[in-house]
Amino acid sequence: MKTNIQECNFNSLGEELSALDTDNLLIVVDSRVWQIYSKELEENQPNDKKIYLYKSLEGESTKNISEFEKGLEFFLEKGIHRDSYLVAIGGGATSDFAGYLASSLLRGLRWSVVPTTLLSMVDASIGGKTGINSKHGKNLVGAFHLPENVWILEEFLDSLPKEELDSGLGEILKYAFLDKKIYELMDSKASLSQIINACADKKDKVVQGDFKEKGNRISLNLGHTFGHAFEKIYDLPHGVAVFWGMALIFKLYDGEKYLENLRTFEANLNANFGAPPWLNKTFPVEKIMEYIKKDKKKKSIEEVDLVLVEEIGKFKTIKVKFSDIQNKLEQNIDELKSFNF
Amino acid sequence: MKTNIQECNFNSLGEELSALDTDNLLIVVDSRVWQIYSKELEENQPNDKKIYLYKSLEGESTKNISEFEKGLEFFLEKGIHRDSYLVAIGGGATSDFAGYLASSLLRGLRWSVVPTTLLSMVDASIGGKTGINSKHGKNLVGAFHLPENVWILEEFLDSLPKEELDSGLGEILKYAFLDKKIYELMDSKASLSQIINACADKKDKVVQGDFKEKGNRISLNLGHTFGHAFEKIYDLPHGVAVFWGMALIFKLYDGEKYLENLRTFEANLNANFGAPPWLNKTFPVEKIMEYIKKDKKKKSIEEVDLVLVEEIGKFKTIKVKFSDIQNKLEQNIDELKSFNF
Repeated sequence: MKTNIQECNFNSLGEELSALDTDNLLIVVDSRVWQIYSKELEENQPNDKKIYLYKSLEGESTKNISEFEKGLEFFLEKGIHRDSYLVAIGGGATSDFAGYLASSLLRGLRWSVVPTTLLSMVDASIGGKTGINSKHGKNLVGAFHLPENVWILEEFLDSLPKEELDSGLGEILKYAFLDKKIYELMDSKASLSQIINACADKKDKVVQGDFKEKGNRISLNLGHTFGHAFEKIYDLPHGVAVFWGMALIFKLYDGEKYLENLRTFEANLNANFGAPPWLNKTFPVEKIMEYIKKDKKKKSIEEVDLVLVEEIGKFKTIKVKFSDIQNKLEQNIDELKSFNF
Repeated sequence: MKTNIQECNFNSLGEELSALDTDNLLIVVDSRVWQIYSKELEENQPNDKKIYLYKSLEGESTKNISEFEKGLEFFLEKGIHRDSYLVAIGGGATSDFAGYLASSLLRGLRWSVVPTTLLSMVDASIGGKTGINSKHGKNLVGAFHLPENVWILEEFLDSLPKEELDSGLGEILKYAFLDKKIYELMDSKASLSQIINACADKKDKVVQGDFKEKGNRISLNLGHTFGHAFEKIYDLPHGVAVFWGMALIFKLYDGEKYLENLRTFEANLNANFGAPPWLNKTFPVEKIMEYIKKDKKKKSIEEVDLVLVEEIGKFKTIKVKFSDIQNKLEQNIDELKSFNF
């Protein structure tokens, strides 16, 4: 199983959809994306297939079980079949949601993704992790269900809000530490287009080697253990939260030399994340621990694997007890409150 | 991937649970089963693991999305992790429900089944088809998620209501046409215990050869295309509906010589399904077609694969247009109203 990752425009996207081996297409499109691009999408949709269009709620708001139920019943009411084919058009939230729909409808339909955000182009759309949120945390319910194609249309970036762009740039920064080639691209201020392709390929390679995340796929979690907590606590865009999650990991676990890279590459990508959200406030140890303990990457009720950078392009993981993380945060709390870089 | 199918008693079941490589067990047990067997189950539960017990609604009533949500949130609230292990104890509805929970929690937990009904011992618990019902039909939402073990405790049959026993016997009858050895066991009035094991093994073999039902697994659908419709229309136990579904398939598609086998083996298994539910009533063509058109086995919006018996132990499938099925039913409607055998 492998995902075909391909650059497209609206016209060639239409041709790809038309070439799919099915007599009906289930399209799940983010409402906001539909508002902006309905004309381009409608003009290029295949006319040799029955099309069922479902407009999902904007972004993350669609990722709950009641929206999931609505999506299921919408398509089931149409009398779809096992060779029906689903296409998700939207950001990572939309493809998470739509991919879980695809995995659950009739116990699994084939599907593909058209990512419309930077974050999704380099991360969420690739690798087949799908799902929705629970009351108890993000992405706790879902499936591994690999899309057949990821069709990248950079046109979508033109209408992307700054916050969304930042979110993608934060996640892109992560790849600089996991892949020497991407580090060099960022260091030499390569074009965003080049960097997007390199990141998408890197993610695809990692996933191919470890679909169910039993091994190296965990490397992609760099910055995410604390990042997911910051995302909830400070209501930050995902990639920005990952940026601060990396900063905290580097600070606490012998990676201080990488803090400078973070800021240099941030500037090279024309991003500006400003000061850390905790700066000169209460450092929220209890809340952080609450979220970390529910991290779905943990493999026991006592500890979690933290991803660290051994050297540029090389990661390592360490098993750490929750109580040890808590102690480390508490012992450094005064320094952390004023931690900037 | 292979399921280990094994006969157990309450004591050895406890040992098997204890030997699982996990520090916590998620047990989903049918409320009715718990009412009858809580003592035996509690006495034998491992004391070296954390146990989270979820009592699901009785039988089929648990197979809807709001119960699914309850089950998800119940376990997620406990802070489970990826090496958590789920065990379903109940009939086919319970294992369908619990298996879909296992597949969706943290994108997939390992799981095993303790089937407590005859139907589940020979069918539902084996093969990894899991799911819940939609407004638009049975099992339209779910996942393929293979259990690691099926532990068969025949003790459970002692408390099984007659209707449930009949349901199992109806499904068991199906295997006589798919497997020569099982045909001979039934013909020679072998013990139910022998027949259960033979059916479970047969199902396991078919599934191993075709997990995602792209090929021979479809053979297990013998009697089910009409059976699912009868199940809904007449509110029949699943296996009994399959029995009438087989009868109709044999009647309409050159299998009349097998009608006698149906009745002989029914008697050999000490079952008695009485007269067909349609006898001397309106034969419900429209309703049957409504359900058949939503059959999730269909692969196009126009036709379905019907499973027929070529000779004992050998099946074949034919692609039939919905309109052809409807015509056949309508053309034979007077004969069908009085069809008994």
